[in-house]
Amino acid sequence: MLFLEIKYLKMLKTIAPSKSETEEIIQNNLDYTLFSWSKQKGSNPIAVKYGEGVYLYDYDGKRYIDFSSGLMNVNIGHGDQRVTQAVVNQMQQVAYVTPSCVTKVRGDLGKKLAEICPGDLNKAFFTLCGATSIENAIKLARLYTGRHKILSRYQSYHGSSNGAMTASGDPRKLPVDSQQAPNFVHFDLPYAYRWEYGNENLLKDSIASLERIIAYEGPANIAAILLEGQSGSSGCFMYPQGYLKAVREICNKHGILLIIDEVMSGFGRTGKWFGFEHHGIVPDMIAMAKGLTCGYLPFGCLMVSDKIAARYDDNVLALGLTYSAHPVSCAAALEVLNIYEEDNLIENAKEMGEYLDQRIEEMKLKHPSIGDWRNQGLLGCMELVKNRKTKEPFAPFNAKPDEMVVMNKVAAKIKELGMYTFVRWGFIFIAPPLIVTKDQIDEGLELISEALKIADAEVV
Amino acid sequence: MLFLEIKYLKMLKTIAPSKSETEEIIQNNLDYTLFSWSKQKGSNPIAVKYGEGVYLYDYDGKRYIDFSSGLMNVNIGHGDQRVTQAVVNQMQQVAYVTPSCVTKVRGDLGKKLAEICPGDLNKAFFTLCGATSIENAIKLARLYTGRHKILSRYQSYHGSSNGAMTASGDPRKLPVDSQQAPNFVHFDLPYAYRWEYGNENLLKDSIASLERIIAYEGPANIAAILLEGQSGSSGCFMYPQGYLKAVREICNKHGILLIIDEVMSGFGRTGKWFGFEHHGIVPDMIAMAKGLTCGYLPFGCLMVSDKIAARYDDNVLALGLTYSAHPVSCAAALEVLNIYEEDNLIENAKEMGEYLDQRIEEMKLKHPSIGDWRNQGLLGCMELVKNRKTKEPFAPFNAKPDEMVVMNKVAAKIKELGMYTFVRWGFIFIAPPLIVTKDQIDEGLELISEALKIADAEVV
Repeated sequence: MLFLEIKYLKMLKTIAPSKSETEEIIQNNLDYTLFSWSKQKGSNPIAVKYGEGVYLYDYDGKRYIDFSSGLMNVNIGHGDQRVTQAVVNQMQQVAYVTPSCVTKVRGDLGKKLAEICPGDLNKAFFTLCGATSIENAIKLARLYTGRHKILSRYQSYHGSSNGAMTASGDPRKLPVDSQQAPNFVHFDLPYAYRWEYGNENLLKDSIASLERIIAYEGPANIAAILLEGQSGSSGCFMYPQGYLKAVREICNKHGILLIIDEVMSGFGRTGKWFGFEHHGIVPDMIAMAKGLTCGYLPFGCLMVSDKIAARYDDNVLALGLTYSAHPVSCAAALEVLNIYEEDNLIENAKEMGEYLDQRIEEMKLKHPSIGDWRNQGLLGCMELVKNRKTKEPFAPFNAKPDEMVVMNKVAAKIKELGMYTFVRWGFIFIAPPLIVTKDQIDEGLELISEALKIADAEVV
Repeated sequence: MLFLEIKYLKMLKTIAPSKSETEEIIQNNLDYTLFSWSKQKGSNPIAVKYGEGVYLYDYDGKRYIDFSSGLMNVNIGHGDQRVTQAVVNQMQQVAYVTPSCVTKVRGDLGKKLAEICPGDLNKAFFTLCGATSIENAIKLARLYTGRHKILSRYQSYHGSSNGAMTASGDPRKLPVDSQQAPNFVHFDLPYAYRWEYGNENLLKDSIASLERIIAYEGPANIAAILLEGQSGSSGCFMYPQGYLKAVREICNKHGILLIIDEVMSGFGRTGKWFGFEHHGIVPDMIAMAKGLTCGYLPFGCLMVSDKIAARYDDNVLALGLTYSAHPVSCAAALEVLNIYEEDNLIENAKEMGEYLDQRIEEMKLKHPSIGDWRNQGLLGCMELVKNRKTKEPFAPFNAKPDEMVVMNKVAAKIKELGMYTFVRWGFIFIAPPLIVTKDQIDEGLELISEALKIADAEVV
């Protein structure tokens, strides 16, 4: 008989930090594993021992407030053992079945997602991550429409596999520019802070610009328009009010599918289940990952409308992967969805987002380096500028190392003071777990405020 | 305080099957989820309640012997609670950290894999599945060499994302032919059973054919040759003896990288840690997944040589994904690797493979429909033919439904008799978990023997 030994977090906390243990852990990681999007030498990674709520703890006992929820995915916070329980329950029945078999949890999760999603988005194709959701969305859009082109936005991110990376409008694709897939077209979409021709013209011009590109590319060649439900790591750029509604109408007019990438913006991050719900539209497919399991286990899902799904009742659906509908990931996702509801986390995200907005308005008065603040719910980005009049950024798009001097100092200060968050170019992202409290927001902002002094001193 | 409630498999077994529960489970799955590589209507899926060892059990209490280890991945068998324990231990510390952070388990797993892999394959880039391992291998090969073409084999499978699918030589790519990525080249490689010019010429001709294609494509344009360590779902086609060694030499001569896909053939499946170890070579990168966690959790790894990794000490490694080095998947993998060693499973795979070969030689005498048997360790494929002289197959490559009449009957019989395995075209795959015993091999073969009567009756 098997008994699972319970190790309590409290027990872990009492273990005295061992310097040599920390060093060995970091050295093993550096010697035997590769780190993404970075040089391998000279990095100074945090060795995470355990996580609880909005905090991470390293082996030396130092606490970090996680102000980006990992990679904007750990929405329910760290260390929630209800997920562990759900994982154990499933693993004691069956951990893996092939995607041609069914499990109770797969059906239950599909049904739950159909309830959460609006309109006729009722069928789930379970994947592994955001990229595999996007890959399958692109493939399905092409198969369903018989068209080949995918339109997406510059300054967007959809994943790092060949199709998803080509669809992305992110500089992380530039080192692999020569291997990009064919038949992807990108369009530009200005954002209010840097648009010079009056807010009243932003929507009109954005739509006119998209319509021209569709005309040039030929609407009958376009399988889908792919957009994030709410812009995230590119800089949380807000859609002009009415933009997504207009895009939906353009899609309807030309028989183009609308795929919304909710990988980062989904599952309460913006104060609603999905980012697109702020815009009164229903897409044809939703790509999901991150908040679906809050990173507790890898998982993703492509939610598909009944209309599209019905085509494959009697035709072969040419999609598939070994881990589709993984039972243990399904179980983690189902429990995570229950937690959102039980703990009222989406309502909390909305409330805390409003509090965050209010606090940052106050910070703007103290910190001349804050140029713009863009946020919806708890998916926020602070843009730092050297000069509020000229809006000269502290670091440009795709900044080179020598253009990052001040921002690197700000980022290092934030980390030193005990915060983990995502700093990129001239942007500081603020996206704490949806369980965050007002006190914890204050605590985090105080840290950022301290670090901003470095940037303030450089303001001209 | 939290107590994890233990549900014993034995308890599950005593629950009386409920017909309406089964029906509801299947209906939910059909109503709310999509099934891969198939029509959505008319499927009759197995509803899996639990798994133990080489067996799966449905909600009606029916037992299936799993003769393909799921999708050739559940090498340690189903229901091994040592993996659950490792998963719980990690989840009680921290479930998710971003790939820029380090964890103890990540370093430990990297070190363990470096010990297992031959040569200077010492650095692990952790991914999510076979496809993401291949995607990253392709990307890294192009970045490292500055070349763009990837050569791979027809009749191979490397995954379903855009890059991995284009690299595959599998008909599952044909429905998405128009969206394939550029700069992939495929070459043909005959197999002994259908080669008409004498075994002594097979190696010579295969190498000459590959060398011609390399010359035509221009060796200085070729970043990598990508090959499975041992052919799997395409039909377990054996490499001519000496082939991989010759390919390794060709790669060395032209500065082409050799990427070996061990997703299906790795981790003891062929009776050694990796399929390529039967051929006395060391590749530049190994793509791993499946047997690395045996499907208990999704996971993958790209193992990279020190020589390649060193390039990124001071250059940015332009690879990344949210779930890279997922702590819980790392923990599952580390425990699975321990289980291979503790339970001597790789040795058992070799021994049971030899027993299987011997038993199938006997079956050939009884069953005229068995044309060829190809196996290494426990990665075997039985090819059925209508006529041993003409070698006319029971179903051709990429068979249409009306060409599958007899094989579909054989497959249905196998399932009815209580076996889950992979039947494709004229092939029956035999790849049980590495824990299989002689008695269980006998039990499975008896079932297949019974089903083969259907094919035998059609032999001319």
